[in-house]
Amino acid sequence: MTKPLPRKIAVMGAGSWGTTFAKVLADSVADQGIPVQIWARRDDAANEINERHTNSRYLRETKLPANISASSNQREVLEGADLVVLAIPSQSLRRELAVFKKYFEPEAVLLSLMKGLERGTDLRMSEVIAEITQFPEDRIAVLSGPNLAMEIAREQPTASVVACADSETAQWIAELCSAPYFRPYTNDDVLGVELGGIVKNIIALAVGMCDGMGMGDNTKSTVITRGLAETTRLVLSLGGRLDTLAGLSGLGDLVATCSSSLSRNNTAGRLLGQGLFLDEVNDRMSQTAEGIKSARAVFDLARAHEVEMPITEAVVMVLEGSLSVENMAARLLARELKSEGEQN
Amino acid sequence: MTKPLPRKIAVMGAGSWGTTFAKVLADSVADQGIPVQIWARRDDAANEINERHTNSRYLRETKLPANISASSNQREVLEGADLVVLAIPSQSLRRELAVFKKYFEPEAVLLSLMKGLERGTDLRMSEVIAEITQFPEDRIAVLSGPNLAMEIAREQPTASVVACADSETAQWIAELCSAPYFRPYTNDDVLGVELGGIVKNIIALAVGMCDGMGMGDNTKSTVITRGLAETTRLVLSLGGRLDTLAGLSGLGDLVATCSSSLSRNNTAGRLLGQGLFLDEVNDRMSQTAEGIKSARAVFDLARAHEVEMPITEAVVMVLEGSLSVENMAARLLARELKSEGEQN
Repeated sequence: MTKPLPRKIAVMGAGSWGTTFAKVLADSVADQGIPVQIWARRDDAANEINERHTNSRYLRETKLPANISASSNQREVLEGADLVVLAIPSQSLRRELAVFKKYFEPEAVLLSLMKGLERGTDLRMSEVIAEITQFPEDRIAVLSGPNLAMEIAREQPTASVVACADSETAQWIAELCSAPYFRPYTNDDVLGVELGGIVKNIIALAVGMCDGMGMGDNTKSTVITRGLAETTRLVLSLGGRLDTLAGLSGLGDLVATCSSSLSRNNTAGRLLGQGLFLDEVNDRMSQTAEGIKSARAVFDLARAHEVEMPITEAVVMVLEGSLSVENMAARLLARELKSEGEQN
Repeated sequence: MTKPLPRKIAVMGAGSWGTTFAKVLADSVADQGIPVQIWARRDDAANEINERHTNSRYLRETKLPANISASSNQREVLEGADLVVLAIPSQSLRRELAVFKKYFEPEAVLLSLMKGLERGTDLRMSEVIAEITQFPEDRIAVLSGPNLAMEIAREQPTASVVACADSETAQWIAELCSAPYFRPYTNDDVLGVELGGIVKNIIALAVGMCDGMGMGDNTKSTVITRGLAETTRLVLSLGGRLDTLAGLSGLGDLVATCSSSLSRNNTAGRLLGQGLFLDEVNDRMSQTAEGIKSARAVFDLARAHEVEMPITEAVVMVLEGSLSVENMAARLLARELKSEGEQN
């Protein structure tokens, strides 16, 4: 390995995933004496992390390692950081990056934990990062996998995928985030890893809707199977790889998200399936589920590339009020008898 | 469609899946006046079906349709049956077929619902059927998918796959078992469909073990992902198809079995994960989980074809007492950092 260890690691965002991944990094690099610093928007969150080593708003039970500190000052956090982890809401990335980029070290590596397509442009997060920062692709990476943050915070064994066009960068990041309970693999299919993490939220909404309507595991497994099939079609048409979707960041993440009651998207879908309106669902949840924000963008992207995504289409119609959840379920299952390959 | 409707349909076996599928068939063909007859080993089970239209031992809540009858006499059930569904324990198939075959109609079509490899020969059920009956492959079919029997008995929407080397036969069967809540697709990859249904039971044991040890959805999703990958390697090496494993009878069935508390294999794995010995697990369950019976045969088959199946291997070692469940979990997750394609 030629790349030297980072002097410091910055984690931009103190939500549940950002804070949890900061803990993974801190546990991984504690022996090397590398500091991990979190940027929190709110002063009180930064103070709590510094003084009590907790982030009680998002991770009630978790004690953060001693080598994590926090600040609400972007410059302070980014200065000297050779690895910068981005964990902010996807729709605010462009705006925040305009500030961050003034303070990035010239050779910093950027790692996105974010899942979503930017509204209006339909760009993936790594594409927004490339556009704003003008960093080369060998210094922009993404991380995705079956990674429910609460389980990782409790140190449940977890695997994940670091993807970068440059394998050496991916390997460098993987070694920096290898904790005893967190095992990252590497991949060079950034598009496949990133889209797997985006579309799974939409499929989880559909599975949640089925759940909310009282359907069983047979139905849910069918929606998961067809959901992965339509995600794979989209990824292949855009140049990603089949094996990425069959791996941890595709199938693995989809199954974790659809199985877990901890998933916001699954929960939002369940509430919709129980008959709540979208505004009522949003009112009940502290953060809007990512799938609700991304569904239309994914569907537009699919249409632009002439890819059929019937589950995504049905979710979009439910969210936009042109299809009832009852009719969605009928629509997903009531097809002509045919051979399985043509099932969509 | 050239094949005429069957005069009668026989379902050999009155367990939970045989009885449930008889209900699917009966609901599907009720309008055509086709009788469905179940063969039950025990007289009292046959009498209960005839007199009370229930099978309380396996399906407590379900009322069976009026066009289902039952008998404990093989000859009576098989005479005139142009479609024969086989739903008996996989390890007794050879013995039972020796009796059944005397009464099969010469042009009957045989459909296997059974999951398992025959011990000693490592043959799939359709291979045992072909060997004993000498029926041609265009009259031997299998059905498999995300099909938890209890959910189908409650008429929860379900999809499935009918596989036969002859597409016309598969289509003929699919039309005979299309109930409003049950939607069969067709496939000509009998080997892929059948092996998907066998290996998933072993993966479900591994997932159950993780569950029993208190691991979360991140870990379970990783085991499911890698379990499908090793199943796919085995199927490809034996001549089956990748898309079969990505479909309802592969991924779909695997996810349903691993998600459900109704699955015997999942339950058995959970008990093993909680520290029970294998004999204690078998004592607690009314039927031995299929994965316990098939694991060694699948592992031998994989070894004979030089296919690596680390999860299956670990399950075999736990079942045979040469690996503790605690070490199994460590073994499945503790690997060197590498790129995802080489993850096994």
